[in-house]
Amino acid sequence: MSSQDKTPKKKLIEPRTLKGFRDFLPETMIPREQLIARVVDVYRSYGYSPIDTPVLEYLEILTGKGSDETDKQLYRFQDSGGRDVGMRFDLTVPFARFAAQHNAELGLPFKRYHLAKVWRGENTQAGRYREFMQCDFDVIGTTGIVSDLETAMVINDIMERVDLRSDASFTKFQIHVNSRKILNGALEKLNLSEYSTPVLRALDKLAKIGADAVVEEMQKTANASEEQARAILQIASVQGNNDQILANLETQLKDSQLGLEGVSELRQILDATKTAGIPAERFAIDVSIARGLDYYTGTIFETFLTEFPQLGSVCSGGRYDNLAELFTKQKMPGVGASLGLDRLFAGLEELGMLEKTATPVSVFIPLFDEALTTQYVVLARQLRERGVGVELYPEPKKLGAQLKYADKKGFRFAIVLGSEEAEQGKVNLKDLQKGDQTDVALDYDTLADTILNALNS
Amino acid sequence: MSSQDKTPKKKLIEPRTLKGFRDFLPETMIPREQLIARVVDVYRSYGYSPIDTPVLEYLEILTGKGSDETDKQLYRFQDSGGRDVGMRFDLTVPFARFAAQHNAELGLPFKRYHLAKVWRGENTQAGRYREFMQCDFDVIGTTGIVSDLETAMVINDIMERVDLRSDASFTKFQIHVNSRKILNGALEKLNLSEYSTPVLRALDKLAKIGADAVVEEMQKTANASEEQARAILQIASVQGNNDQILANLETQLKDSQLGLEGVSELRQILDATKTAGIPAERFAIDVSIARGLDYYTGTIFETFLTEFPQLGSVCSGGRYDNLAELFTKQKMPGVGASLGLDRLFAGLEELGMLEKTATPVSVFIPLFDEALTTQYVVLARQLRERGVGVELYPEPKKLGAQLKYADKKGFRFAIVLGSEEAEQGKVNLKDLQKGDQTDVALDYDTLADTILNALNS
Repeated sequence: MSSQDKTPKKKLIEPRTLKGFRDFLPETMIPREQLIARVVDVYRSYGYSPIDTPVLEYLEILTGKGSDETDKQLYRFQDSGGRDVGMRFDLTVPFARFAAQHNAELGLPFKRYHLAKVWRGENTQAGRYREFMQCDFDVIGTTGIVSDLETAMVINDIMERVDLRSDASFTKFQIHVNSRKILNGALEKLNLSEYSTPVLRALDKLAKIGADAVVEEMQKTANASEEQARAILQIASVQGNNDQILANLETQLKDSQLGLEGVSELRQILDATKTAGIPAERFAIDVSIARGLDYYTGTIFETFLTEFPQLGSVCSGGRYDNLAELFTKQKMPGVGASLGLDRLFAGLEELGMLEKTATPVSVFIPLFDEALTTQYVVLARQLRERGVGVELYPEPKKLGAQLKYADKKGFRFAIVLGSEEAEQGKVNLKDLQKGDQTDVALDYDTLADTILNALNS
Repeated sequence: MSSQDKTPKKKLIEPRTLKGFRDFLPETMIPREQLIARVVDVYRSYGYSPIDTPVLEYLEILTGKGSDETDKQLYRFQDSGGRDVGMRFDLTVPFARFAAQHNAELGLPFKRYHLAKVWRGENTQAGRYREFMQCDFDVIGTTGIVSDLETAMVINDIMERVDLRSDASFTKFQIHVNSRKILNGALEKLNLSEYSTPVLRALDKLAKIGADAVVEEMQKTANASEEQARAILQIASVQGNNDQILANLETQLKDSQLGLEGVSELRQILDATKTAGIPAERFAIDVSIARGLDYYTGTIFETFLTEFPQLGSVCSGGRYDNLAELFTKQKMPGVGASLGLDRLFAGLEELGMLEKTATPVSVFIPLFDEALTTQYVVLARQLRERGVGVELYPEPKKLGAQLKYADKKGFRFAIVLGSEEAEQGKVNLKDLQKGDQTDVALDYDTLADTILNALNS
């Protein structure tokens, strides 16, 4: 074996990312992680536990679970062992597989959250990404209304905390709630139960194509007479405040046990959340929301930013009868929702609710005088031990250039310590945001206190 | 369009994961996230910022960057747009691509951390996983020794915090340090500079095959005479305490500027960390460590749990001359390391340093009396607002069954509130770990304080 050949001039490889895929730089990643931490805090405070599953699954686990569209968008290939595999396109299908596989160990009811990336080969022209984050939380193994209730409360608690500015004001939002039982009850009454899928499909288009076109579609695809189609539309378009809607629905559905069950459940959710202190106006009954997905059977949730409704729902979910029916005979009813982190983040950005910074710490120490290097290292360490994060510039350079670096990254403070300050036992503390400066004794406790007080004021 | 056909009996799909891939259940995931949070806290306290990159990269970005082995182990395929893509096998190559691509926006020096999964089609028989987590931190754009120093301090700070037990005692560990400059200096002196790769490869086998076989291999593969090979071995096998080793190396390398530079840098790292208060015995100069990878050019780190050395290094890294040379002409020297989270976690598990629990909250409220449901919901919410995480059982069931569930999940407390307690304005607070119970006034502040005090004592 001879020494390695070195090609004299290597051709550079163009550094680029795939279409629909993104790098996250610190100024985006820092608020993103802050948002994620708040979401996770809420999930955990309700007893939802973290789980994780592989990015790759056997192809048969993934195909035929979503829709024809998700099948087409799947990233799939053969691994080197000849297995057909795919990258997960959501977190629900892997959770269904997970729940069936570990059923005995988990014990029901089981509450989990899962924050992870998923992949879909979407058309990127619509501003969509092919790699994005989902933040799901679900409880399975129970039909108790308490779980529906708590799902609503989790969504509320997350939304209360999404404004990331230090002077955060309250973010207005509204959670739209519905129950599939209401529409299914109506269909039952009309003897149209078996046509719920085409009825929902047509209803979903109401805002887009208008009432007449929806009635026409129901006649074509759902075997409905015009009268029946109009009756369904009447239920789905009930207007008024929550109490009025509930009263109206109770009258219209008085012959349907299922429909009345749906109305009663919505009433329980509204009553309990109000008693628990959540303002009533946070919830709006909206009989028109159906959520495209077939598998919802009870409560349905969608969440909108009041100042940015056109963003669409940022947190959606609902109750389903049986999560894992494709994998196990054991019934696993449950309820949950998924926070659209990327969409919410885009909305917060648009509304100016993020504070961009490219550094996770507030304090910068320039390496001003090389002879004092060890002293800087010690100072930085002492401050960190007192809860103050510090970045120390790694090499000597003109102070102006170092402060310019600090300014660009967004540090709040710079601690300047030259030989003169060292002799006098003090440092010069510069507030880079306010543009003022003050001398502080070179005493670690005093310095840390001064900084922490300024940060918390 | 007719109604959906329902196949009478669907065949169940077997719920299973791919070989080498794992699900994480809460009892593993909770301590894992705790460990990750501690690691991230340390990274951030030094000013390392989070970044993220796509799981999929253009294949040309990934191939030929690691070794023939990583190329062979790559998960690669053609996407539906006909692009050759691959799943990242480490976080270094994507970081090099990232740094070259965003160079202008980032500004150097740039400190980043990146915690993410990577994929390698490894032979799973060796107990290796094909999907695992890497936790990298690096600073690029500087040759300053301060960055080497801080890398050592970050490793120290992480290792100080890895014992996750509530009564954590100190975890003994040692960080082995070396500098490539020492060996390269020696090779320079011996006119063997161009053979550094085969020399390092042979040296890496010292523990396994012994001195004579290493000498023989160097003669075969590195064009070394027996005398030269023994001279290299002598440098690499210097023994003693840190001071003795440094003195010895200084003598042996007195004619090599590069070698003396390496010695001087190691001395600076040891001196400064000691002055900063890190016990000297945490560091051991170990001239034999070379880290297989070609690209290290200065300081090298490996980290071992004293009680479990056979686990191998749990945190390794070093200094390199140019991170992104394949992607840009701009020089990007830097230093960093990677925490082997999965390996460390396995080690902590083996050493009994994890506390397993399947719930992220301490308090369980059984839904004991259905008539009191709203009261439970309110109680849970009031406690959460006071910083006490609470899981409320979602449906009425016999108290015994609910407490059995609580016991299995590992809750510390159960708050039992029946109609009798409600009338008397109190609750029964059960300590499920200690097996005792006490009546506490149904006053949210009192109850929250009682629980928080017990948890912190």
